[in-house]
Amino acid sequence: MVELSVVGKRLPRVDALEKITGKAVYGTEVYLPGLLHGKILGSPYAHARILNIDTSRAERLPGVKAVVTAEDTPKTRYGVSWIVDAKDEQMLAFDKVRYVGDEVAAVAAIDEDIAEEALELIRVEYEELPAVFEPEDALKEDAPRVFGDSNIQKRVVVTRGDINKGFQEADYIFEDRFRTQHVHQCHLELTDCVASWDASGKVTIWVTSMDPNTVRTITARALGMKESKIRVIQPVVGGAFGAKITLIRPYAICALLSRKTGRPVRVVNRREDDFSTTRPRLPMIIEIKTGVKKDGTLTAREIKAIADVGAYAGEGAGIMAMGMSYPVSLYKCPNIRMDGKTVYTNKLSMGQFRGYGGPQALFACETQMDMIAEKIGLDPIDLRLKNAIDKDEVTVLGWDVKSCGLRECIQKVAAYSHWYQKRKEKKPNRGLGLACSIFVSDCKEYEFGGSTAFVKIDEDGQISVRSGEIDYGQGAFTVFCQMAAEELGSSLDDVTFFGTDTDVTPHALGPWGDRVTVSGGNAVRLAAIDARRQLFEVAADMLEASPEDMELKNRKISVKGSPEKHLLFEEVAKAAVYDKRGSPIVGRGTDVRKTDFIDPDKGFAGNISSSYTFNAQIAEVEVDPNTGQVRVLHFATANDLGKAINPTMAEGQAESQIVQGLGFGLLEGLKFDGGKVMNPSFMEYRIPNSVDSPPIKVFLVEPIDPNGPYGAKGAGEPTIMPTAAALANAIYDAVGVRMKDLPITPEKIVRAIEAKSKK
Amino acid sequence: MVELSVVGKRLPRVDALEKITGKAVYGTEVYLPGLLHGKILGSPYAHARILNIDTSRAERLPGVKAVVTAEDTPKTRYGVSWIVDAKDEQMLAFDKVRYVGDEVAAVAAIDEDIAEEALELIRVEYEELPAVFEPEDALKEDAPRVFGDSNIQKRVVVTRGDINKGFQEADYIFEDRFRTQHVHQCHLELTDCVASWDASGKVTIWVTSMDPNTVRTITARALGMKESKIRVIQPVVGGAFGAKITLIRPYAICALLSRKTGRPVRVVNRREDDFSTTRPRLPMIIEIKTGVKKDGTLTAREIKAIADVGAYAGEGAGIMAMGMSYPVSLYKCPNIRMDGKTVYTNKLSMGQFRGYGGPQALFACETQMDMIAEKIGLDPIDLRLKNAIDKDEVTVLGWDVKSCGLRECIQKVAAYSHWYQKRKEKKPNRGLGLACSIFVSDCKEYEFGGSTAFVKIDEDGQISVRSGEIDYGQGAFTVFCQMAAEELGSSLDDVTFFGTDTDVTPHALGPWGDRVTVSGGNAVRLAAIDARRQLFEVAADMLEASPEDMELKNRKISVKGSPEKHLLFEEVAKAAVYDKRGSPIVGRGTDVRKTDFIDPDKGFAGNISSSYTFNAQIAEVEVDPNTGQVRVLHFATANDLGKAINPTMAEGQAESQIVQGLGFGLLEGLKFDGGKVMNPSFMEYRIPNSVDSPPIKVFLVEPIDPNGPYGAKGAGEPTIMPTAAALANAIYDAVGVRMKDLPITPEKIVRAIEAKSKK
Repeated sequence: MVELSVVGKRLPRVDALEKITGKAVYGTEVYLPGLLHGKILGSPYAHARILNIDTSRAERLPGVKAVVTAEDTPKTRYGVSWIVDAKDEQMLAFDKVRYVGDEVAAVAAIDEDIAEEALELIRVEYEELPAVFEPEDALKEDAPRVFGDSNIQKRVVVTRGDINKGFQEADYIFEDRFRTQHVHQCHLELTDCVASWDASGKVTIWVTSMDPNTVRTITARALGMKESKIRVIQPVVGGAFGAKITLIRPYAICALLSRKTGRPVRVVNRREDDFSTTRPRLPMIIEIKTGVKKDGTLTAREIKAIADVGAYAGEGAGIMAMGMSYPVSLYKCPNIRMDGKTVYTNKLSMGQFRGYGGPQALFACETQMDMIAEKIGLDPIDLRLKNAIDKDEVTVLGWDVKSCGLRECIQKVAAYSHWYQKRKEKKPNRGLGLACSIFVSDCKEYEFGGSTAFVKIDEDGQISVRSGEIDYGQGAFTVFCQMAAEELGSSLDDVTFFGTDTDVTPHALGPWGDRVTVSGGNAVRLAAIDARRQLFEVAADMLEASPEDMELKNRKISVKGSPEKHLLFEEVAKAAVYDKRGSPIVGRGTDVRKTDFIDPDKGFAGNISSSYTFNAQIAEVEVDPNTGQVRVLHFATANDLGKAINPTMAEGQAESQIVQGLGFGLLEGLKFDGGKVMNPSFMEYRIPNSVDSPPIKVFLVEPIDPNGPYGAKGAGEPTIMPTAAALANAIYDAVGVRMKDLPITPEKIVRAIEAKSKK
Repeated sequence: MVELSVVGKRLPRVDALEKITGKAVYGTEVYLPGLLHGKILGSPYAHARILNIDTSRAERLPGVKAVVTAEDTPKTRYGVSWIVDAKDEQMLAFDKVRYVGDEVAAVAAIDEDIAEEALELIRVEYEELPAVFEPEDALKEDAPRVFGDSNIQKRVVVTRGDINKGFQEADYIFEDRFRTQHVHQCHLELTDCVASWDASGKVTIWVTSMDPNTVRTITARALGMKESKIRVIQPVVGGAFGAKITLIRPYAICALLSRKTGRPVRVVNRREDDFSTTRPRLPMIIEIKTGVKKDGTLTAREIKAIADVGAYAGEGAGIMAMGMSYPVSLYKCPNIRMDGKTVYTNKLSMGQFRGYGGPQALFACETQMDMIAEKIGLDPIDLRLKNAIDKDEVTVLGWDVKSCGLRECIQKVAAYSHWYQKRKEKKPNRGLGLACSIFVSDCKEYEFGGSTAFVKIDEDGQISVRSGEIDYGQGAFTVFCQMAAEELGSSLDDVTFFGTDTDVTPHALGPWGDRVTVSGGNAVRLAAIDARRQLFEVAADMLEASPEDMELKNRKISVKGSPEKHLLFEEVAKAAVYDKRGSPIVGRGTDVRKTDFIDPDKGFAGNISSSYTFNAQIAEVEVDPNTGQVRVLHFATANDLGKAINPTMAEGQAESQIVQGLGFGLLEGLKFDGGKVMNPSFMEYRIPNSVDSPPIKVFLVEPIDPNGPYGAKGAGEPTIMPTAAALANAIYDAVGVRMKDLPITPEKIVRAIEAKSKK
């Protein structure tokens, strides 16, 4: 391995200064002259037929510039996912409303108050219909139907080996049922959008979405227009975590209002709207049945899942299928069966949230692993080490693991947490819980898997990186700049990043499955290498040498072996523009991933990622058995992310996941009444704050992966996946109750302790 | 020649709709939140030393956010031209002021009124110095010095052949002195700029300049910063005609105010500022001495020029040298001498304006040609035809003329104007005047000559063109889109253009010397061909054929000879993104011009353009000998522009030049008193209006030039060059007076008639 000078270093984020000085322009700071304010009218009913909409009074209100309903839309149904084939979305409801908040009409007015007032003047006649809210109710024969004939949106069944034989071979069979809740991504920045339609019929949308490229494509579908007629520019994003993506409606409605008014329009959700109409983590009921031999060897594993997608399919089937795949991939087990259903209910549509099904499924898997260990008398670590997948193994679904630091991760956190000592010398009401995860490092959502980047060298030697991949807070731009600096013998200060703009930056698949560093990063690396090649051509011409004989170090380009024959980087850059080429050097890199297309119907079988990441974490808790209050004393997490391009940022990624996982495990959850979200504010919906957040020790485990740039893998999602299970296992270790229903509230703990004492 | 389906057609401009609907965003419509308003304080003296500047009162005025003076600048001198080596500019005056209006300080405030008021609170102590206003006065030994020891900014002397021998061989020698005035470009949109400095130290400038690339480079020089830290975005431009380019100060000052305030700042000139501080056409005193044989053969020609550059050199020396080159290039003459001086005076700095020295010099040349014709008894047409340069000839300066339609141009306008008949059957006070021109079609301002373009094909088959060349109203984007459509078997509707943004669009030399269609166009053509090659690769892969066997027609890509094996353009475009490459097809084209670098010191000798354009025009006038009033009855103009890419637009170009030339010839001129512009408004400075504008008949003469795309040459400037001479010749033909001093006002005509009658 060549010695690295920028990659792998603890460098500040390239966007740190603009953020800490308040100069960064977030979505709601985008302003255009003549900007109007848009507001959306949602359904008050969970399920109803629309009989008539009268917008005349609203249109007459002074200050109102336009009212739109489904009549202004193509009235077609479209899908919002690359991988789930469900065309059930509507931009504005044109037959029925299917959840409380389902978009019915929208108004653009000169200020927000008038727009709000106008919403009240829209008269919608509804015929209320019976509704269904619980997925298991929705599966009943006589349940009201959300769409068509069946509430089963999709069923996914995958088998490998002989599941019956596997269970026959088992000494023990464990069957457990777990349930996860609706947790919201709680991005502090609300869903917002500005759209401006021009005379040529092209609309520019400024939106702090998670992926401008996908917004462009899906908005085009919703509006029934060509993709090239939509330009999406991404301001600085104040959080997304999986949200702000399959939710296309506010953006499409904003564009529609701009078209109708001929003026730019802003739509910003209130916090209440974000909680009630955007797309929280898909809640799942997971039954996991595992056959185990006395020595701890897994012989068979069956996962059954029922996932509540709400009123529209979204990417639910993908999330559910991917979720089911983790428990059969993290551990070796030749006989498996996955059987999942996504089910429509009259609630808001559900979506992806960091971990993509993993936090749900691994809560079940990793809790049950502890139950198995206890039953057969193995230490939880030993049971896991016995079954864990390893380097150079291929999982039962076909995942080809070329690097694996799982064992080292477990070892690291166990040592740091004094696992063996503390488990032996147990203090009352204190407990330690371990849990692990596997995650992908890239994913192929359509035939082409990969990424494209350009690296440009200005005439003064400044380097700029343009990638199709985006930075929505995770630090991608910094990672990319480090890679470009590395290949171009430069420092991070010499490299800047060009923000995402679908008319300018390359196309990309989107920041799914932690693919940005691996595939996006490799594209940047290749583009930088291509730029270097061109620099060498120009320099060789100037030095009358051969391009093959050039070398670049510390911004000096010289002839190998003749260091006196050299040029400054900026001299060559300038000559390229003014003497040799008439244009700055632009290197192009396209990364191609030779993985298998991810397919929910196939349960994500095949080698769906070019590398896999692993995590092990241990939570230490203290539980008050009288109040059920859980105090998290510390977390130790070890993350196998391959080469850490920027260790400081990787640690930050891990810490944030632990805190979000803690919210999922202990605190958060939407509450419904008749399909209506009853706690749509941070007063009522509790997320972890600094007091709730324990000290977190992060270990980075860095096996060099052959398929990643500099050996890197992803880092954005593996850590959140096992956190709820680690907490549940720690709570069991502390007070002896098994919690299988999230969030693990004090009330549930007290009830469980009471129930247990009654036995 | 292949049959063309889009190129050469009369198609509407691609930006027509946005302009006629008022949707186009011009400079002053750019708005950013928190925008401040900047105002610039100019010197009240034509020449003075700055003793002290006290900004404290202005800074205390509520609403004022910053005041800047030279203390906030690098206090270095810089040049504003690529070709004239003069480092005499200052961003804000730090020693002396050199003209009335010379920038001394600037203010940013929350509104324009406060900013204006604050200017009045800035106390500048001056020591007034003697000033000089006329270039011939400035050449006197005891004249006050504007810079250093001499007021001669540059002297250019070029000789070819033996000038003395040439004059000895002549039967007649003509010596005449002509004088041209200060005419302003009179772009309706005022000079304006918005600048926004970000946290990283990068500034974005929205400016309706003539060339964002040059603005970026020169602003970097003025501010002493790296080019890559400046991003220039061009809104829609409301006219420039050569202005808004060497004038960098308002842009640099605007940027400086943004840096100091940390907020976006707008600077917009008042009309008065534009007339008094921006850079009008370089006025010249031209002495032209020509030796002629009895048969009309030119034997020697000497041009002496004194050009008044005003207080800063700008690009004056280039304009003057280029000007002197036309009279020795339009006609064959082996013995020539050019001797020009640019002279500093205490007036506003002068600059380029459509024709780049040509309107001045050809006024002299083409008037004298008529005087020669009269003297030796030849028809003006015959004298010109006898001496005119022709196809496949190389001029005395080395201009290699590969196509030339001059003879056809003369023939066309003569026939249309009934030249021979009307000259024979003369009506009283009516006259016809002919004049001709030669112009370049591209120019190389530094070592690399050429242009770069990208042609992108979106996933829906929409084509977009990105060129370094710019559209500032002349229609470049339409021409480029036509070329891209032509090469990609598409219609104009299938092609859009991406506006100029120095961070996004390629680098370019700037729209000088009519090079945009030729060099810029060829780059677009090559980029489109490259995109087609890539389309064919993808299509061949899909059709299991060879890329060489593909053909593209009417948006269908098929296998040659097997039309049933075909794909739609958009199918292939989509496959490129989603199946084959992960990114839209982007073709790249770089045009390289093998011409000689233009050098004022060498008088533009060498083959400075890859092709040359020609024009002939005839004015018909009626002059009232009592009032001197000139009524222009009609103009016929024939323009050799090679292949006309868009005849309608080419005709519009010609018409606009005739009208501007008419203003130059008859109406316009800045008036000064003590260096101060006395007529800085459209009330006092008369430009031609619709009543002044005669019917104009435009002929397009289209010899196919081997060096231009589709045979095209430039079209933006040749027609304005001879207009003043055509008018002067027509006036002579009507009332028998020779007018050698522009503008030819009624007063001057009456005086000339009186003087003649006294003889």
